[in-house]
Amino acid sequence: MPDATPPARYRRACDYLAAAMIYLRDNVLLREPLRPEHLKPRQLGHWGTCPGLTLVYSGLNRLVRETGRRTLLVTGPGHGAPAIHANLWLEGTHAEYDERLGRDESGLAELVRRFSWPGGFPSHLSPDVPGVIHEGGELGYALATAFGAALDDPGLLVACVVGDGEAETGPTAGSWQAVKFRVPGVDGAVLPILHLNGYKIASPTVYGSMSDEELTDYFRGCGWTPLIVDTTTAADPDQALADALDQAYAGLEHERPPMIVLRNAKGAGAPGEDAEGKPLAGTFRAHQVPLTNAADDPRELALLEEWLRSYRPEELFDEHGRPAGDLLAQVPDGDLRLGRVPQANGGRLREPLPLPELDRFAEPVEEPGASAAGATGVLGAWLAELFRATEQRRDFRIMCPDELESNKLGAVLEVTSRAYAREVPGYAENLGRGGRVMEVLSEHLCQGWLQGYLLTGRHGLLASYEAFASIVDGMVNQYAKFLKMSAEVGWRAPVPSLNYLLSSDGWRQEHNGYSHQGPGFLNSMLNKKSSVARIYLPPDANTLLVTLRRCLDTTDLINVVVAGKQSGPVWLGLDEARAHCQAGAGVWAWAGTEGGATPEVVLACAGTTPTTEVLAAAWLLRRSAPELRVRVVNVVDLLTLAPRERHSHGMSDEEFAACFAEDVPVVFGFHGYPSAVHEVLHGRTRPNRFHVHGYLEEGTTTTPFDLLVRNRMSRYDLAAAALSHARGWGSRGGDLADALLRERDELRHRAYTDGEDPAEFTGWRWS
Amino acid sequence: MPDATPPARYRRACDYLAAAMIYLRDNVLLREPLRPEHLKPRQLGHWGTCPGLTLVYSGLNRLVRETGRRTLLVTGPGHGAPAIHANLWLEGTHAEYDERLGRDESGLAELVRRFSWPGGFPSHLSPDVPGVIHEGGELGYALATAFGAALDDPGLLVACVVGDGEAETGPTAGSWQAVKFRVPGVDGAVLPILHLNGYKIASPTVYGSMSDEELTDYFRGCGWTPLIVDTTTAADPDQALADALDQAYAGLEHERPPMIVLRNAKGAGAPGEDAEGKPLAGTFRAHQVPLTNAADDPRELALLEEWLRSYRPEELFDEHGRPAGDLLAQVPDGDLRLGRVPQANGGRLREPLPLPELDRFAEPVEEPGASAAGATGVLGAWLAELFRATEQRRDFRIMCPDELESNKLGAVLEVTSRAYAREVPGYAENLGRGGRVMEVLSEHLCQGWLQGYLLTGRHGLLASYEAFASIVDGMVNQYAKFLKMSAEVGWRAPVPSLNYLLSSDGWRQEHNGYSHQGPGFLNSMLNKKSSVARIYLPPDANTLLVTLRRCLDTTDLINVVVAGKQSGPVWLGLDEARAHCQAGAGVWAWAGTEGGATPEVVLACAGTTPTTEVLAAAWLLRRSAPELRVRVVNVVDLLTLAPRERHSHGMSDEEFAACFAEDVPVVFGFHGYPSAVHEVLHGRTRPNRFHVHGYLEEGTTTTPFDLLVRNRMSRYDLAAAALSHARGWGSRGGDLADALLRERDELRHRAYTDGEDPAEFTGWRWS
Repeated sequence: MPDATPPARYRRACDYLAAAMIYLRDNVLLREPLRPEHLKPRQLGHWGTCPGLTLVYSGLNRLVRETGRRTLLVTGPGHGAPAIHANLWLEGTHAEYDERLGRDESGLAELVRRFSWPGGFPSHLSPDVPGVIHEGGELGYALATAFGAALDDPGLLVACVVGDGEAETGPTAGSWQAVKFRVPGVDGAVLPILHLNGYKIASPTVYGSMSDEELTDYFRGCGWTPLIVDTTTAADPDQALADALDQAYAGLEHERPPMIVLRNAKGAGAPGEDAEGKPLAGTFRAHQVPLTNAADDPRELALLEEWLRSYRPEELFDEHGRPAGDLLAQVPDGDLRLGRVPQANGGRLREPLPLPELDRFAEPVEEPGASAAGATGVLGAWLAELFRATEQRRDFRIMCPDELESNKLGAVLEVTSRAYAREVPGYAENLGRGGRVMEVLSEHLCQGWLQGYLLTGRHGLLASYEAFASIVDGMVNQYAKFLKMSAEVGWRAPVPSLNYLLSSDGWRQEHNGYSHQGPGFLNSMLNKKSSVARIYLPPDANTLLVTLRRCLDTTDLINVVVAGKQSGPVWLGLDEARAHCQAGAGVWAWAGTEGGATPEVVLACAGTTPTTEVLAAAWLLRRSAPELRVRVVNVVDLLTLAPRERHSHGMSDEEFAACFAEDVPVVFGFHGYPSAVHEVLHGRTRPNRFHVHGYLEEGTTTTPFDLLVRNRMSRYDLAAAALSHARGWGSRGGDLADALLRERDELRHRAYTDGEDPAEFTGWRWS
Repeated sequence: MPDATPPARYRRACDYLAAAMIYLRDNVLLREPLRPEHLKPRQLGHWGTCPGLTLVYSGLNRLVRETGRRTLLVTGPGHGAPAIHANLWLEGTHAEYDERLGRDESGLAELVRRFSWPGGFPSHLSPDVPGVIHEGGELGYALATAFGAALDDPGLLVACVVGDGEAETGPTAGSWQAVKFRVPGVDGAVLPILHLNGYKIASPTVYGSMSDEELTDYFRGCGWTPLIVDTTTAADPDQALADALDQAYAGLEHERPPMIVLRNAKGAGAPGEDAEGKPLAGTFRAHQVPLTNAADDPRELALLEEWLRSYRPEELFDEHGRPAGDLLAQVPDGDLRLGRVPQANGGRLREPLPLPELDRFAEPVEEPGASAAGATGVLGAWLAELFRATEQRRDFRIMCPDELESNKLGAVLEVTSRAYAREVPGYAENLGRGGRVMEVLSEHLCQGWLQGYLLTGRHGLLASYEAFASIVDGMVNQYAKFLKMSAEVGWRAPVPSLNYLLSSDGWRQEHNGYSHQGPGFLNSMLNKKSSVARIYLPPDANTLLVTLRRCLDTTDLINVVVAGKQSGPVWLGLDEARAHCQAGAGVWAWAGTEGGATPEVVLACAGTTPTTEVLAAAWLLRRSAPELRVRVVNVVDLLTLAPRERHSHGMSDEEFAACFAEDVPVVFGFHGYPSAVHEVLHGRTRPNRFHVHGYLEEGTTTTPFDLLVRNRMSRYDLAAAALSHARGWGSRGGDLADALLRERDELRHRAYTDGEDPAEFTGWRWS
């Protein structure tokens, strides 16, 4: 295998740097014999995937130089960061972002030291690394992210390295089918490179045990034209990969686009055996840090030195530590360099959306609750207008796991369609090659698409059944971390927010039953950094319009909006909705009976169904106990409840007291698990005065009213709780509460007998 | 297409019943003309997949009758419950569990009415349905579950219907590769049947747009021998499927086992068009309830009646509503019926594990913290013994997403190996066909395997990096719901618990960085029913042994055990560990300085790292403020903190006061997000006296000490907090606290300079 061709020399330099940054703190160019004090006290990093990553990077460099095609690299094995850093340094990108990382010995030494050093570069790819839109710490999402980045950017090529460990994940396995959603001429091309080095942490990989024939069948079967490159047998690995890349490039726009299966030796270049004589290079033992004991074991130190010197750095870097001219010549120019591709700092390409005005979409309201509308349906009409407004610029999409029309957003299909690149046999509606709705029965693919799309500067919305948002809990954890770190990187521009519209919420999944009832995603959001997480529960159509329009105008956030799809009361006209949403929470004076005095009990509500129930409970109380002074508070922005020191949206103590009174019991009807409210209220004084009703994990297929009763969320339960807790109402309150519960039980019994809720349980007050 | 053959008649009967139970409450055999009052007030269910499910069920009946092979059916499309119920009724299984569901008109009417009726059968499959180990409400997990059920049960055949909507999910896509882990002769066979009816809710499916050639390539590529059956063109669908099933049966033990691709018309049997003339049967419109307005629209009512009568129920049920003899003759005998297969009520097959005694595995402890051990490594030796003890009975496995040895459980590989059915090229260790460790880089496949294994009565453990447990958050939500409902079903026997060992926890993922730091899985567990969820944080090797041994002896729970893998102090000898774990939490008097008086501050801890930090903080306080009366409390069972009325493990008010004193500030070092402790403490008096330190989502690649400081969890932070909050220490406490924080900052600075933590930050006290 040649090692003196220009690409081989380039790779030797990068492999050297990658290994150096795992081990060395000093003597980084080995001008002296290697001694233990040159080693980092903590040797961190993952060697195994690095030589393969550099081989790919180098191959892409050549392709970019020859074709001028702008190319974004998404690196699945984010633990191969040393390789990426080496290439970024060699191509000069690092120096352009940080002058201390110049292409000389001082810069090289700084890079090597800084990798995995406290305060330095993390061990995995991260937002502070140029050219990166995917961390690759939690595996599974690189391929979907790559497809998302390619959407609506026909000039772009997205190369995506998928490790063969990562390929075993469910999300990756499902993402190969995304090729059927990529439309030539509309979207950029995605070139996946399966990095098949045969091993994961401690054992061989599944894909490593597949024959060429099986790999070919598998990928051809899901719509690709696989090209297998085997560097372990190729005379010239760079040439073999170059040929494959050229062949792939020629086929990017074909109906069955190319992907590359790159058979490679894991950790090639490392010693063949470790100090105990166990196989090292080419096996799982090369995964992380080969030779972990070089500081104390002279045999390992010798092996390490031999390994590092095998790259002959003196032939690659001059006496000032500058890379040789033939290495630099292989780097593309300017922002064609992989580290400089503009799409990787997508916020700089972001254009704020032309958000339509709400006036003609809002529901007119003469009296609170007098009219009804399905909130998501109303929103759908506005979203359709947004699709119209972005028809030319094409920078807004909706991703949805086969639930668009079920969530009543079908109006958008008057303007756009579901993207699909293939012909389908049989009957189909609203499928089209130009569509900007991405529907596939995979939350993972939807989420990955959206992440890639947002991080390259475009806007989007993920509409999902509430319960199934938890399917992507891990992905959201990671994305929130990416946003949090991005905000700390000066050169990374803000990207459009990730917006979730969670509908088909549990309270009206009484027909689908228990599996479809799960509001835990909100709890998960509460553990994200307060700078990133936003949670909104607009109770009707107009507040949903206001909320989502606002969310689509934000950057660097994760906005979770929970809304109802069933027809329900419209409480606020557009102007009131704006004011209410601006405050985030507030007293609905028209719903209460305080009459200027201190309330005896506060009924609070957040979410469509709890709001209806609370309003109905207030009505029940007016009927049963007209002298009870009740205040009704509606909360749209959940984080307003948190103390100001914990969240920027939190009400001040004064605002909180003005809203919830002081020392007055609060019966809180909350959409999700009560724990979410417990958490946001933590730190407020006298939190035990809040009696939170929420989802108690009691559910099945039943009627809406029965589902509420099972979870003590019905209007009767809330009204009874108010009477039980109201100050000074003692046993009289208890008696009235019992009467209400008996009324509840009677209605519930009728639901079981009739198979549907009694007519009394409709709307929010008795006609 | 023949409709008078015995299987066709059988299917007509079941299709009729499935449709009837969606629509009818009365006149269930259409002895009178259909009138609106015969219709259910709420028509719930999913028709589209039902005819296909019954076709499969019928085909399996024949196969079972002819081969006598015990067969378990896992139904991916759980929304096709009407079909399953129809078959269960017809085969007599329903009657054996509930005499009101006998095979006569009264039983038929009861079944039809009860489906989706309040208090009746849910709309999806559920634990109250015989023969079911998978609900199929949240899609993606049927195939992995099927493979899990087949493990270690060579006589079993597990047929698994995978809908082509579900096939789009990531988890399903990754699960096809599980065929490489199924070992003939060791494990049962899995026969997947891809139900390719071409449509999901509102659009064509991806797999529906794939040609026969592509489907063949895809499945052959990942190791199957696909057999394509097209009922839409077959002269006799039953015969076509029967031929495929026979062919499949003959090949079950081959290296490339068979799977069936069943092309079918979605909702076949329903009207070809709806009342508006839009295509119905064979399209996505048949997905749920075709003809939603029959109660009010006479045209739809007429279409519905015509549809139902097209099955000619009078030819299938006699005047007493009993199924015709030739239908009954197609049902297998006894517990060969799919609804009676013993494995579907796996708790009845459960044998408690022969759990080895702990004594010879425990670490000896002469003085708390004087010796050190890696907790998971100690556990590994005991788990190895458990593998030895179960070598013949083979009813215990470990599932792990490529992290077994990283989590220091490699000792088990002395006894067993990683299961793999294939030869692998290249170097491999500990791979074998008889292995009972299941390692694949897919949390979804691991979780699905384990669910199937447990629900068929076997025992297991899922060992995972803590942060990546959230990948399966959705699956765990659903499994917890399954367990909750199972407990309410009298005939369903308790199954072994699902045990998680979460290690490589975030506090010592300072090397892998931010993506590997995420304790949110605990929060998710807190929203499960208290009857199901258990959370343990044993702080050392001996408490881990005691805890996990106990967990493996429980049933019907989800036990989450968080443990450290690094070498750390061993605090308690085996006997003390037993007592401490039995209580779940308690005062460590040897660590405190109360001296018989009321403490001025309580230092509480839960989790390995926080415990070490709290003990070190106590030491710092003894050094800085020896007269401060400090109590140290360790919590292993997180739910002991919850009020007794919210969790059965909760301490009584008296026990709580005895532990945490009353009205004394508590500085709590908690392993996970502080929100988890806030939640469990909710309802306790004066919760604001608890100052919870936990993970604040501050992280990167850094040193262990720096990571603690970033999250205010270091010994210095905890000691300073204690001094700041301690009653009566006022400004003196503040000054001492400041001094500690300066000491902290100085050490932290050295960490940044040296690239590693100072020697002072080791262990838990100064030597």
